[in-house]
Parts: sequence; C-alpha cells; structure tokens
Amino acid sequence: MAKRIWNSTPKKDGYRMPGEYEAQERIWMIWPERGDVWRNGALPAQRAFAEVAEAISRFEPVTMLASDGQYENCRAMCPPEIAVLELSSDDAWARDVGPSFLVDGKGGLRACDWTFNAWGGLVDGLYFPWDKDDRTAEKICELAGADSYRTEGFVLEGGSFHVDGEGTALTTEMCLLSPGRNPSLTKTEIEEKLKEYLNLEKVLWLPDGIDPEETNGHVDDVACFARPGEVVCIWTENPYHPFYEAAHKAYRALETMTDARGRRLKVHKLCCPKRPVRIGENFQLQVSGTAKPRKAGELCIASYANFLLVNGGVIVPQYGDENDALALSQLQAIFPERKVVGVDTREIVYGGGNIHCITQQQPRRAGGTAAEAAASPESSI
Amino acid sequence: MAKRIWNSTPKKDGYRMPGEYEAQERIWMIWPERGDVWRNGALPAQRAFAEVAEAISRFEPVTMLASDGQYENCRAMCPPEIAVLELSSDDAWARDVGPSFLVDGKGGLRACDWTFNAWGGLVDGLYFPWDKDDRTAEKICELAGADSYRTEGFVLEGGSFHVDGEGTALTTEMCLLSPGRNPSLTKTEIEEKLKEYLNLEKVLWLPDGIDPEETNGHVDDVACFARPGEVVCIWTENPYHPFYEAAHKAYRALETMTDARGRRLKVHKLCCPKRPVRIGENFQLQVSGTAKPRKAGELCIASYANFLLVNGGVIVPQYGDENDALALSQLQAIFPERKVVGVDTREIVYGGGNIHCITQQQPRRAGGTAAEAAASPESSI
Repeated sequence: MAKRIWNSTPKKDGYRMPGEYEAQERIWMIWPERGDVWRNGALPAQRAFAEVAEAISRFEPVTMLASDGQYENCRAMCPPEIAVLELSSDDAWARDVGPSFLVDGKGGLRACDWTFNAWGGLVDGLYFPWDKDDRTAEKICELAGADSYRTEGFVLEGGSFHVDGEGTALTTEMCLLSPGRNPSLTKTEIEEKLKEYLNLEKVLWLPDGIDPEETNGHVDDVACFARPGEVVCIWTENPYHPFYEAAHKAYRALETMTDARGRRLKVHKLCCPKRPVRIGENFQLQVSGTAKPRKAGELCIASYANFLLVNGGVIVPQYGDENDALALSQLQAIFPERKVVGVDTREIVYGGGNIHCITQQQPRRAGGTAAEAAASPESSI
Repeated sequence: MAKRIWNSTPKKDGYRMPGEYEAQERIWMIWPERGDVWRNGALPAQRAFAEVAEAISRFEPVTMLASDGQYENCRAMCPPEIAVLELSSDDAWARDVGPSFLVDGKGGLRACDWTFNAWGGLVDGLYFPWDKDDRTAEKICELAGADSYRTEGFVLEGGSFHVDGEGTALTTEMCLLSPGRNPSLTKTEIEEKLKEYLNLEKVLWLPDGIDPEETNGHVDDVACFARPGEVVCIWTENPYHPFYEAAHKAYRALETMTDARGRRLKVHKLCCPKRPVRIGENFQLQVSGTAKPRKAGELCIASYANFLLVNGGVIVPQYGDENDALALSQLQAIFPERKVVGVDTREIVYGGGNIHCITQQQPRRAGGTAAEAAASPESSI
C-alpha cells in the first residue's frame, strides 16, 4: 500500500528530513545474529541491543526487527514494551539500511530508500551479499505506511550524513567520495543528489571520519547537530590518540562554517575515551569468507558522538572508560532540556558500530516538539 | 508491544469473536511458495492468490505476508494497493494459522492464538515441520496491535469452526474429535474450550466435513452463517456426488438446530460443482518427504461454501464448472445486500484449500456495520 516514487524528488514534493532533535514517532532497530560479525553467536551483542532498546523505550516506542529464526529469542530477550516484528537482513545496522524518513509538515510521511552496498560493494564492502539489507528500507516503509523515493543507482547510508532540518547537511569527503559508492559521480553531482533527496540548500563537507577501514568515515562518529546552528564535535588533546587528527581537522573546519541559514556554527567539544577501546582477549568469531574478519586487540571505533537523540532523551555509548562520566556530563550540558542515559555498548562497538548506527528514527508526521510528541498516544506497532 | 495473555480467557474479559459478516478492518493473506504443495514452483497458485487479493481489495484493504525470498516476486505479482509485509511460514493458510480476532465492543481488539500442528501433527498432519506456521498468529497480532490469548496445548484451526457473533459456533465432530489434535480431551472439554475462547453459549456439532484426508473435515467447506439465525449449507441431489452424503447429513442436522439465542436455523442450500473437480493432467509437484503428495486425477475439495464475506462483498470460488453461475446467483439471493464476486480458484483447490482457507479477517475494533466500515478511513498497513 506504501508506494515507491521514481519520477520525483522530495525537494520537488516539499518533503524534508527533520533534524534528529525534532519530534519522533518511534525508533526502528534490527536484531543482530551473525556469528561472523558478533562474538559468541551474537549473544553478548543481543544483550547490548536489548539494553539500548530498553533505554530508548523509556522515552518513546521501539520496534525491533528480527529474522524468523531469531524471533522467539529476540522476543524473549527484549522487554515486553518493545514490539518485535519479523524482518530478514544481512546484519543489524538500521541507520544505514533503514529508510531516511521525511515529512512535509502537513501530516505526510515519506522516506528515501537509498541503494545499499554494504559500505563499498565489491571495492571495499564489509560483507557479501547485501540483498536482504537493501530490501529493508522498503519493508520498513510498508510497516510505517510511508511512500518512498527509491534512489536507484545512488549509494548512500544514513550514517554518512546528518541534517539540521533547516536546509543543511553535514558529511565527509572520505565516505561520500569513496570509490566503492558512486565512483561515476563528481562531488558536485553527489551534492546535488543530497540536496534533491534531503531537500537541502547547503552541504557542509568535513574531510575525514575516524573509521576509514569500516564505513569509510561516517560522520556520525565525528560530529552531529545538537540543534539548528549548533554542532557537537569529538575532541581530544592527546596527540597520540588515534582520533586526534580527524577530530582536530573536523573541529577546525566546523568553526569556520556557516549553515544554510547563514548562521556561523557554534561547535561543542565532546571528549573521546581516555584509552583507545580495543577488542578484548578471548574474542573469536565464526569463520566466514564473506564478512570482514575482526580479532582480539583490534582498535574499536569507540566514539561518544555516536549517540542517539530521542524524545526528551540522549542515549550515549559507554565503554567502561575513565571518560565515560565526562562524556555524559558534557552532553548533559549541551542538552540541558534532555535526560542523558548511558549504555555500555562495548559489545556493539566490537561489531563495528554503535547506538546511532543501530537505530533509525521515524519522525512524527505532524511535527511538533518532542515534549508534545511524548504526550500523544502511540500507534499500534 | 502486543501482549500475550496466559491467565485469563476472552469470556472472562468480555471479548467475543464477531461473525464474518460484521464490519472488517482488513484481510490478511499469506503468499504461497512451496513447490511440494503448489505445482510449477507455485507460480499458478501465486497468480490465483493475487487475483483473490485483488477481488477483496475492491471492498477493503488486504495485507499479503511473504517470506523474504518471495518478497520482490510477491510485490511484483500483487496489485499496488495490496500491502506486502515479510513473514515466514510453512505454507499459505491464513485461516488456519492466523489469529482468530476478538472484539469487546469498546474499541478493544484481541485474538486467540491457537496451537497449530498442520492438521493432525504426527498422527495425520499434512506437512512437517510447522513451527513457522505456529509463530504466525503471534506475528500478525503484533502487526495488528492486538493482545492475544495463547491457548498452549489446545490445537485448533480457524477453518474448523464458524461463529455467528451472538454466542453460537458451528463445527464438525470429524475434525475436532480427530486423534491428531486434542486426543486427551473429551467432546465436552473441547466444547468448554471453544466456549471460553470464543465467548459462546452453544456449539452446534455437524457430524462430518468433506475432506477427511486433508483437514479432517473443516466446517468451512460445508456450512457457514449468512447472518444470525441463518446458515448456508452445501447441497446436491446427485447421489453419486462425492459430497452427497456429507451435504445431506449436514443439512438434516442444521434443519433441526436452534442457536444460542433459541432461534431455529434457516438453512439456505448452496449447490456443489456439477462435475467433481479433479487435479488435471501434467500436474507435478517437487518431491519432498515432508508434505502430503498430490497427483493428477485426484479429487479436489471443490466447494462453493469456502467463500469469504468482506465489507459489502462475497468472494466465491469458481471452478470452470457448469454450476459456477448457479452458485453465484444462489449466493446473491442469500446476500442481496452484498456484491458477489467469483474468482477461478482451481489452482488453490489443487493445493487443498480455497478462498476462506487462505484469508483471515481482522474485524473493526469499534464494530459497526460493514457499510459504515467501508466509509471510514484506512489505517496505514
């Protein structure tokens, strides 16, 4: 019943992607299960996903999507207030395989269904195949009752950009200009695509992300909008920290930038973990020829910037690190109107992502503030 | 988010199953795909299912549930107004594996999630395993936002009974007393279960169905309620017709029965196909050790009684038989307030069922007449 739209764009139709801080309807997540990405048959990661879902559900509804084979296990491991629906996927990255939802401010809900190729396809993708993942956005749109723009041929993941909801996007050259995504398009052409599909006036390009080997530098580990005109950027004073260079480059770039409305950005610093988080001892994955191998001792992409904004809340990764509490207090100062909640996500970061990567917000159709949203009744799923 | 209820019953909670003629919200169907049940890789059956869905969608919304492997094929073969959602199943019998929905007349929607064992489990079930089928009702309930009563240990299929919505059920001894379902329960105990879970005062027992080898005699091939106090019963004057004896036994029994409200039933006769429908030549299934084999020449359970009532409509099987038009005109006379639509379902009857077997109605929460229902807006899925 949800239609796919091929012959128009959100910009033409008056749809825009809201900022993550705008009122949300629910959060979509996907249940992890592959033994060649998640250790111990994915059980520790499943526990962490359930904890993230539980934390979010204190603020708004969560729908967890699980394969049929995992349905009963997922139902048993998630709290009863989490809706569990069947959906097959190649892994568990709702940010990157899910739809990017759009609203028109008149009650309309649509979405972009980007082409997904596992972060680089046959050039440097992280697993093969990815056909189930690429069907996921369409299925979520049908569940949400949202017509979708299928951007056939344009490869993009939700974690590779942030929007302020007022005409500006933030992204990285490292990712969007990577050879495994849209090698036939120039930077200008890519920017035009973003402007058409996210209804933007201006794209702010940061140079690098912090995970060149994984997502080729998704921006959602580096910086994001806190509200229109304000961004959060990771920061460390330690020149030996693995994220030092990317953090400083991003911070310096952001300081000089103005957004689509002409505002000079206010940049908030967010600390990095004191000690680089590494995959622990006794870490072993099932062997497969199709997923990037991961092993004990490897550096994890453990950034506090991979948090999620929900109605009235901020869900923040914690790593058992000395700086965990500092990250929470910095974010509480940036978001005094929200409740900041930390969740230990080491088992998720071992798989290559974090809270923002495993979630996808569906905005309220009618818009309104998060406080208003929290007061309204829920839909059935 | 939909809860499972273990420690109460619909009768205790004031929920009842509405008659099929009451206002409906939507019809749920499941996409066929097994090559050992449906010929030619299920393609001809898929075409017939899509035609049934299209016919229903003229009256109310239809949601088709398909496995991930069939998702794109199902989406392509069904008209765009049919919603397609992912769901894994062991076959395609939404009547028997889906939930039996209940309402409380105050906007509440719940359902019975019967234990399913493929029409007889290891005694005389039709395929093995059936675990996906047995998870289906729970998944549909989550999609519909309906809390469900899980009748753990009580085996029943939706096609084995009809209700009038006013305290009466119609069923068969052949099916409900079969050794493959609830052998440890007496007839009285089974009747008590029905009364508790469907909120009934009276169960009307017919002796036999017409498919002892398949569903062990589901009533939905023999008789059903047209409205409170009135039933439709199959009929043939030809003593050589394979359904002659069961039809006459059922008709004679129904003539003498009174319903829960004390009304003597008015019985409408519905013809049978003139010539017994048989599986045609060149019929071949993929071989499997787990599904009942079917072969060319076999008698099909081709009854016109396996129709479906929808808001303002009656969807009726057609077999390319001389009596097709007679069946339509008889039903039009019984249901003058509804539009009668025939669909050629030979490819479905080759697999052992028909329109009623492959559909499951979700009633309107608030109740109301079908005409009112047809005038109200649809939900998103």
